[in-house]
This record gives sequence, C-alpha cells and structure tokens, in this order.
Amino acid sequence: MKPANDRELVARIIERAASRGLTLAVAESLTGGLLADAFVSVPGASRVFTGGIVAYDTALKHSLLGVDAAVLRERGPVDGEVARQMALGVRTACSTSHGEAVTERVGIGVATTGVAGPDPDAQTGQPAGTVWIAVSLGAVERQQLLALDGDRSSIRTAAVAAAIVLLWECFDADGDS
Amino acid sequence: MKPANDRELVARIIERAASRGLTLAVAESLTGGLLADAFVSVPGASRVFTGGIVAYDTALKHSLLGVDAAVLRERGPVDGEVARQMALGVRTACSTSHGEAVTERVGIGVATTGVAGPDPDAQTGQPAGTVWIAVSLGAVERQQLLALDGDRSSIRTAAVAAAIVLLWECFDADGDS
Repeated sequence: MKPANDRELVARIIERAASRGLTLAVAESLTGGLLADAFVSVPGASRVFTGGIVAYDTALKHSLLGVDAAVLRERGPVDGEVARQMALGVRTACSTSHGEAVTERVGIGVATTGVAGPDPDAQTGQPAGTVWIAVSLGAVERQQLLALDGDRSSIRTAAVAAAIVLLWECFDADGDS
Repeated sequence: MKPANDRELVARIIERAASRGLTLAVAESLTGGLLADAFVSVPGASRVFTGGIVAYDTALKHSLLGVDAAVLRERGPVDGEVARQMALGVRTACSTSHGEAVTERVGIGVATTGVAGPDPDAQTGQPAGTVWIAVSLGAVERQQLLALDGDRSSIRTAAVAAAIVLLWECFDADGDS
C-alpha cells in the first residue's frame, strides 16, 4: 500500500531499495535540486542515495547525462525520450569506478524535465507546467507527462511528488511487493 | 550593501553575475540539492545558473568533481581542501563544449560538504554541524568552516545560507561593487 505522505513514501522507497541492494541517483532540470533534497532530507539516505545531477542548461543534459544531442536539438529538452535518457544516463554518471572497472552500478535513476514558468519554453513554446518525469529501475522504464497548474514553486514541488509516486509504482512493476 | 534576506540576496547575485557575463554552478554534499534550489527557485535563473552536482557519495566527489582521491582518503570528505576542489571542479564539470573545445567556461563554483547528522561522520568522528563551504569566482578562492547547531534540516538550511553570503562577499573580493 502506498503511504499517505511524500516523506513517508520516500522513507519506504529507501527501505525497499536498501533491502534489494539497489542504489539511486537523480537527474533534474526544472526541479533543480528539490528531488535530490527529497531523499537527502531523510536521515540514513546515504544507504541508497548516491548523488544527483542538476542539468539545468540543456547542453549539460548531453555532456553530463549522455542524452542524444540530435534528440535535444529536434525535440527540445521537455520531451519523454529526453526524460527517459536522463533517468538511464544518471545511473551511469553516478556509478562509481576504480580505474576502468565499474564497482558499483546505480540501480535506479529518476529524472525530471519541464517548464517551471512563469514563461513558456523559449524554444518550443510549451506552456509552464508541461513536465516529463521518468524512472529507470533495473530493466523497468517508465515515463509520464504531467500538465501542472500553479506558480513556479507549486509546479516544481508537484513534479517532485509525481516523480516519487512513479518511482514507487516501478518497484511493483519490477516484481517486488 | 548586502540585501536583507536570502532570496533577495540570490536575486542580486544573479544580477551581478549576469552583468559580468559569469555563469554559476554548484557542488553539494550535505545540502543535497538545496543550494541548487536557492538559485533555480528564482525566475530567470537560467541566465546565470547552468547546473549542479550532488556528490553525496564520497566516491562521486572524485569521479564527477575531480577532487583528489588521496585527499579524500587521508582527510575524509568534510575538509576545507575538499570543499575548495569541489568549487573549482564543478566549474569544469558544468562547462559546456562542442567536441574538444570548451565553449562556455563556468565562472563561479560554490560548494558545500559537511555532517548533516544526526550522527557524527562515520569515518572521522566529526560532529553533526561541521560544515565546509567554498567559492571559486574567477581567480578568487574562499573557504569557510562552520560549526552549526540544530537538527538535520536546520544544519542543511544554514549551510546554504552561509554559502550564499560567502559568494556575495567574493564578488567584492573580485573587485566588483
């Protein structure tokens, strides 16, 4: 059963990931640190949470997260395929290695990309509140389009909450109970 | 004159950086996204803020930010030299390039590393509230040690506020008024 509030949900996600030996990393654009904060604010998060990348500048989505440059150019940064590649890419970016060998591969990636507002996206004209979230958990991949109301702050907060719920659902999809 | 509150101070920092053509990136450990959020929450932050790296796992401070592995091993992650290298390293990590050529070099790096608690640092025994913050702005480098009181949430919030003030002071040190 899904817990009643976000903080409890994050604590339960940390327990579930830890019990399965999975680490977690986040890739953020419009939420700019708030998704990382949702995990780090929970004591003991370091058992699971390894790190995050705030790729606010579109070019960083390619250079730090490995999102395909042609996709970014053709579709703009607020796109389901971009979100998918961000979630997958941060699992690689935040994996740790010694020399050439990856010693700890991150098991879960969560991503957000969208228009926080107040203005529409300069490149595509997508309105404020248009947000894609994505999760990559083991072999499970999920993306979801959100159309959020409110000001910049409420759009960013709602995007984080939705990403956490999507992550929770992916645990079920991956066969864990 | 330093503005009265944090949000106003960040808005003024964005103005100052923009007027000098400087971009900004952040490297965070214990503040885990809150420092990035302090910038992204201000509309128009994209004029200056390029991105951030939450290197929560110590190994990521080396792999993503280029902090010297021997320094991390010998001193642990909560250290002035580690903070200095994080602030400098994120300027490189968040610079954008086309092929081999760096096309936009980030002008300002801000970093936090510390013990959020409730427990002391497992490796060094440093108590909760021990925090190093650092700024790298042009050729100016500043590091500051904080000893903060309170719970995990207040320690992390106070670390962000102190980093923003240190950044503000570095503008003056760099000769801007």
